[in-house]
Amino acid sequence: MAASATLVQVMTGAVPADAASAPTSLLTPPRRKAGGKTVAILGAGISGLTAALTFAEAGYRVTVLEAQGRIGGRNLTVRRGDTVTEVWADGSARTQTCRFDRGLYANLGPGRFAHQDQRVFALCRRLRIPLEPFLVQTAANLHQTDRAWQGAPIQHRRIANDTRGYVAQYAAAAVKKGLPDDGGLSGAQRDLLLALLDEFGDLDETDHAYTGSLRSGLAKPLGMTQQPEKLDPLALSDLLASRFWERQFYFEFEHDYQPTLFQPIGGMDVLARRLAAALPDGTVTLNAPVHAIRSAEDGVRVAWKHADREHDRRFDYCLSSVPIPVLKQSVELEGFSGEFARAVANVEFAPAFKIAWQANRRFWESEKYRIYGGISRVDSDIRQIWYPSSDYFSRTDKGVLIGAYSSYERAEKLGDRPYDERLKIAREAGAKLHGEFADPSIVPDRQGLSIAWHKMPYQAGAWTDWDHTVPEQREWYETLINLQGHGNVMVIGDQIGPLPGWQEGAMMSAEWAFASVHGRRRGGRVAVQRIPNSKLLTEGH
Amino acid sequence: MAASATLVQVMTGAVPADAASAPTSLLTPPRRKAGGKTVAILGAGISGLTAALTFAEAGYRVTVLEAQGRIGGRNLTVRRGDTVTEVWADGSARTQTCRFDRGLYANLGPGRFAHQDQRVFALCRRLRIPLEPFLVQTAANLHQTDRAWQGAPIQHRRIANDTRGYVAQYAAAAVKKGLPDDGGLSGAQRDLLLALLDEFGDLDETDHAYTGSLRSGLAKPLGMTQQPEKLDPLALSDLLASRFWERQFYFEFEHDYQPTLFQPIGGMDVLARRLAAALPDGTVTLNAPVHAIRSAEDGVRVAWKHADREHDRRFDYCLSSVPIPVLKQSVELEGFSGEFARAVANVEFAPAFKIAWQANRRFWESEKYRIYGGISRVDSDIRQIWYPSSDYFSRTDKGVLIGAYSSYERAEKLGDRPYDERLKIAREAGAKLHGEFADPSIVPDRQGLSIAWHKMPYQAGAWTDWDHTVPEQREWYETLINLQGHGNVMVIGDQIGPLPGWQEGAMMSAEWAFASVHGRRRGGRVAVQRIPNSKLLTEGH
Repeated sequence: MAASATLVQVMTGAVPADAASAPTSLLTPPRRKAGGKTVAILGAGISGLTAALTFAEAGYRVTVLEAQGRIGGRNLTVRRGDTVTEVWADGSARTQTCRFDRGLYANLGPGRFAHQDQRVFALCRRLRIPLEPFLVQTAANLHQTDRAWQGAPIQHRRIANDTRGYVAQYAAAAVKKGLPDDGGLSGAQRDLLLALLDEFGDLDETDHAYTGSLRSGLAKPLGMTQQPEKLDPLALSDLLASRFWERQFYFEFEHDYQPTLFQPIGGMDVLARRLAAALPDGTVTLNAPVHAIRSAEDGVRVAWKHADREHDRRFDYCLSSVPIPVLKQSVELEGFSGEFARAVANVEFAPAFKIAWQANRRFWESEKYRIYGGISRVDSDIRQIWYPSSDYFSRTDKGVLIGAYSSYERAEKLGDRPYDERLKIAREAGAKLHGEFADPSIVPDRQGLSIAWHKMPYQAGAWTDWDHTVPEQREWYETLINLQGHGNVMVIGDQIGPLPGWQEGAMMSAEWAFASVHGRRRGGRVAVQRIPNSKLLTEGH
Repeated sequence: MAASATLVQVMTGAVPADAASAPTSLLTPPRRKAGGKTVAILGAGISGLTAALTFAEAGYRVTVLEAQGRIGGRNLTVRRGDTVTEVWADGSARTQTCRFDRGLYANLGPGRFAHQDQRVFALCRRLRIPLEPFLVQTAANLHQTDRAWQGAPIQHRRIANDTRGYVAQYAAAAVKKGLPDDGGLSGAQRDLLLALLDEFGDLDETDHAYTGSLRSGLAKPLGMTQQPEKLDPLALSDLLASRFWERQFYFEFEHDYQPTLFQPIGGMDVLARRLAAALPDGTVTLNAPVHAIRSAEDGVRVAWKHADREHDRRFDYCLSSVPIPVLKQSVELEGFSGEFARAVANVEFAPAFKIAWQANRRFWESEKYRIYGGISRVDSDIRQIWYPSSDYFSRTDKGVLIGAYSSYERAEKLGDRPYDERLKIAREAGAKLHGEFADPSIVPDRQGLSIAWHKMPYQAGAWTDWDHTVPEQREWYETLINLQGHGNVMVIGDQIGPLPGWQEGAMMSAEWAFASVHGRRRGGRVAVQRIPNSKLLTEGH
């Protein structure tokens, strides 16, 4: 019985039904060793460090040159005393210092792994990085808009389940009327579909109407003499007026946001730190910004500055995770094709903005809100408030909220405001969800911190802004995933590949670079049919 | 702005929108102390221990009499060397021994807290019990039935999102046809509703049709040259034939199963152990089965046996968490009303059955399945397979699965089989989801363990089988939540109250008993209008 079931599984391809990722070859030692060839890797972010480990283990001599004074790139966790310095349009560098209590942290860059991220998991297993679930959405998260409900925040469970109820009721009306007209279903199937709709939307089984559901919450506190009692459902007209679905309400259903997501326990930067620690001593040089890449037949020359001295060295290969806009602006390129120059000249990064904020009470975990993780949404430029998916019910009763997370136009707008105004805007928006946000003794200004990724030196933004509707972008993408110069230079990072902004994408590019340089793919140009739509992937439309 | 938003929140009652629980008074020290009155508490389960702590802190002298050789009652966690002894119809006691590797455990009774369980959380905070999220449902969980898909297991994401798509398509057909006929919506509202449906079901925006969704999974592994590609949607006819919605598919939307749920780190029994440790020394006597409760004007006499000696003592009060069917069968009751006798004679408990099984590989966490927590469903008597919501990616690569969880008729059926046959049935059903289950080297027989709660001594089942459609049951319930005998005996436990089978219910009853005995409610009889529907609460229909 078991054997035949397995056979069916294989036959039908039902397991794995979802081929989100092929088994990764990342960190699988190759059969053939490199015999001491040299590789310069530009950038000690996740792609650079992963590539460094992969190439080093295959016998390459690896040099990682990092422009900044720290590893990680956008993999950035801040703790007490850490600084964040943005460079503004006037050229000024303006620094904020993290003043969280000791033991608290915030991930200002990527904050989660999708359960599809098998390269990430392979690495975490190997580097013994402990993970805990990251909760994207919980039933008690809040949604606020001035368009409806007099601006009052509404729990996720109410909007989600009342909407399900109304949708099921409309669907049942169609089924009862025999729609669609072409009549695809038998009478027995229609009865089954109505039974399904009753469960789906918690409809009244007699007339398949929606009149509210315990799923949306209870009208009165439970007690020995009080059984569960339904709330009145939200009016469909109010749900429509709120336009809640335009604010990523259904993001939890998108492939990369479906549970189970994970985060490293203690901060995202453990990933970068453990990766770096696994490299041979002296592999990474910090404060070493590269200013030239010169590709030639006999190798690639890389020029950088370090400790006030100029360096210029020949390598067999160069892998560059330098963000394309930074490459364009700050690095002299020699020995590259016109198409590469065009790609570099045109690829742009998307802005993103975050605020992290210490709260001196985990008010969201109190009986008043009962929020344990997940994200609330507010119809403001700050968009999102993230509650910590860790240290629930902490003894200190303190925690760090992400008090804003937006991208594109909204991120630009927020990033243009001075640091104190950013916090003021976020506080006012946050107070629409939680009155506690208005109280600086609970959420102190001095323990808030913002980051506009497009103003961060050597970053230029949060992810590549791929637009699949622009034909030339396909050409740029295709160019950038192939070996360049005289076959000895490769672009890496999540900036190329199908997962903009995801660390899994950074690792995938490292794996790809290794296969291109070391594996059989070397030499042949690889074509692509389709490229990502970054805005859709990150903002949902 | 913030202040006015808060005002609106208070005015509209939007926060808390969902009054699932009133602020608990549990463990709030009372103003008035008891001055040494004596209380006998029968049973050292969660209600008995919570009541013991509450009464002791109010100045009562508390004696807890526990029939079994351990505390906890149905709060039962097994580890290597622990035994489970069922008593069979022929009177034989048959023992299984837990043979998990050291460090592994299984919760054989309750396994999760709802995020509404504010009494539980208050206690966990106070007793410093660390909690971690319990995941009820993840996108990669599997559903299997022989009714469809040639018996192949299908990922939750596929069924959930393809169904959402079809439902949205039917709803859109109704909206486009102007249904319902009475026409409640304006043209502009219909447009908004169609836009909502597009997001809700991931419909094609041009004709609001469902043609598959990336939410349901990817057809091909992502790669540098492979952007996400939709799977063909499951056929609606197959979804209907599978009757998936009859197997608790939508349980994750029910109020008590909505995220975030929690479990104590390291095992559910930490709750019972920490509660007991917080009591004055000598409060709990184990192996002390009570055989008589005699209520009189001047107090209540309790008789029990302990260490081969008979005991008979007077107390001011007696709280009994003894399951009603056990009370009926094994305890002499004197000085009680006819209505109490009727309630005791008639209230029944529901059977429940679980299997816990060590797996020597966490195969479900491999790239093949990518399952991290949650529950898979199978169209068999075993119903559910739970994956651990802890120790993800464990270094040992071992873990304990709940290999069966069913109740009522199915539990009875499974409970009637000998221990080895139970495992055989569960292995065959499990193998329909995971071929690995067929391999005894991965899931060894000797490391499996089953429990039929209705065969456990002093338990008689898993929860009270309340049926709100039977009028007398309301009377029994009402009787059981009031002081009985000569106003000095009270029934406690989740066996009464709105939360059958939940530890929050056990604590609520302890809180209620304290208010009844010590508080103002003493003396006045409390009425109830409605009682729980246990089968609906636990099985969904």
